Amino acid sequence: MPSVLVVLDLVGIFVFATSGALVAVRKEYDVFGVLVLAGTTGLGGGFLRDVLIGAAPPAALADWRYLLVPVAAGLVTFVFHPTIGRQERLVNIFDAFGLALFCVTGALKADEFGLGPLPAALMGMVTGIGGGMLRDLLAGRAPLVFRSELYATPALAGGAIAVLGRDAGLPVFAVAGAGACTCLVLRLLAMWRDWHAPLPTGPASV
Amino acid sequence: MPSVLVVLDLVGIFVFATSGALVAVRKEYDVFGVLVLAGTTGLGGGFLRDVLIGAAPPAALADWRYLLVPVAAGLVTFVFHPTIGRQERLVNIFDAFGLALFCVTGALKADEFGLGPLPAALMGMVTGIGGGMLRDLLAGRAPLVFRSELYATPALAGGAIAVLGRDAGLPVFAVAGAGACTCLVLRLLAMWRDWHAPLPTGPASV
Amino acid sequence: MPSVLVVLDLVGIFVFATSGALVAVRKEYDVFGVLVLAGTTGLGGGFLRDVLIGAAPPAALADWRYLLVPVAAGLVTFVFHPTIGRQERLVNIFDAFGLALFCVTGALKADEFGLGPLPAALMGMVTGIGGGMLRDLLAGRAPLVFRSELYATPALAGGAIAVLGRDAGLPVFAVAGAGACTCLVLRLLAMWRDWHAPLPTGPASV
Repeated sequence: MPSVLVVLDLVGIFVFATSGALVAVRKEYDVFGVLVLAGTTGLGGGFLRDVLIGAAPPAALADWRYLLVPVAAGLVTFVFHPTIGRQERLVNIFDAFGLALFCVTGALKADEFGLGPLPAALMGMVTGIGGGMLRDLLAGRAPLVFRSELYATPALAGGAIAVLGRDAGLPVFAVAGAGACTCLVLRLLAMWRDWHAPLPTGPASV
Repeated sequence: MPSVLVVLDLVGIFVFATSGALVAVRKEYDVFGVLVLAGTTGLGGGFLRDVLIGAAPPAALADWRYLLVPVAAGLVTFVFHPTIGRQERLVNIFDAFGLALFCVTGALKADEFGLGPLPAALMGMVTGIGGGMLRDLLAGRAPLVFRSELYATPALAGGAIAVLGRDAGLPVFAVAGAGACTCLVLRLLAMWRDWHAPLPTGPASV
Repeated sequence: MPSVLVVLDLVGIFVFATSGALVAVRKEYDVFGVLVLAGTTGLGGGFLRDVLIGAAPPAALADWRYLLVPVAAGLVTFVFHPTIGRQERLVNIFDAFGLALFCVTGALKADEFGLGPLPAALMGMVTGIGGGMLRDLLAGRAPLVFRSELYATPALAGGAIAVLGRDAGLPVFAVAGAGACTCLVLRLLAMWRDWHAPLPTGPASV
């Protein structure tokens, strides 16, 4: 991978890991729990994708930087959580950057492993939202992504654009940029305008 | 796979996905959450099996029909949930057909991958019950299968019959039919007669 | 594996499976739920490791003894749970032996599969704590390991010692013994002196 992409990837992992560490602090987990939730949230989406597409062991287990970044994010959050917690809106904006990057790199990796466009775009979405879903499971709560403003849809759109562009023979940097920008803009708009996916209507049967 | 088996497989996925979508509607998840729970419940058992036996990427990621069926089930349930929710007994009967099919196809696939009879039968059970267990985890509740009428036992029995018959050299259609019928009859009897697995007796220690 | 290691491995699985079965009994799961939690707790850590390092199908699916041991532990606990539940301190001491063994065998297996020292030590920790984390997820509660006395840290230390010693060319029995003893002593001390990892300080933001 070009080094600019590695740096962006590590930044995305750092931001995701911070969101996991914040949840752990609020659940009053100890420092070990904070680190595990940081690691799971930062790396879990990529782990899920790699296990599903048959790319084990995941890249993160072969490169020590991918392991140290969530540890750093967890320790920083453990110490400075009152300050970071008050900046959650800022964390969420960085999180949108992480999502935009993960959905594109995840979809392109699945594409390289020979999956079709629809499954590859789905794997991009899984890379983007999987870490947060594992975080919520380990925190003993239902995944936020099922009720928050649009989160998975931008990731799916970004992954689909990247994969379709790639299959059309466009250069990888162009399609990665277009996919990531689409995801980022959609996610920021959703946060800004409070866009939600439709809820079921009518009384739910019991 | 012969096309009749593919159709049966897709029907099973549709029914399982519907049960996942109903749970999501009752949790007031948005349409995206409904689709994710539909997909997880419909495909999760097969994903778990394929990851455990080393058959990644799972078949469902290589065939777009396997991805569209849970989407269709999720959307239908999202719109018509008051009607479908009132027919839960009917959904449960279809679910028994899905279970019967999944336990047999799962066990036979594990057998083909070289697992012994006992692990292969277990993988059949995992294929049948895994989707519902993932559904319950994502819905933030303890898996129903641990407390409902007999559900996993019929799946284990069906898988075991299919694998043992196969290892004895019987034709695949015969053993698949015998395994699926055994599972189906046991599960329908359990629903009809309210059969439960034994509960622990005596006071639980704290 | 030398037969003494297999016996130790099976003992560790038995003890872990017993702790899973006790949780299931207290949740009033039926006998099937008790067996599933026994199996998941006893074998889940190894499954997680094998899936992550690309060693599927897991060893436990290729050797019937690995499947029968948790079944035996589950049935014994199902019947004798009032007695076993009162001996939880004893169960926890055996559990420390299981942890010591699992962290070392898990780390050495990951090392053999070509992972670096840091990821291999982490995989040792995952082998040791993964089963208990899956147990808690299936019991619908947040993982205990995030709040209990030191549990994962001893496992990480034991795995690290084994891997570093192995990479330094020391004989496998020596490094396994040193790693397991380190983990065991740390864990028993943590239980005895009630050592906890540090908790976050200061008010958690909301």
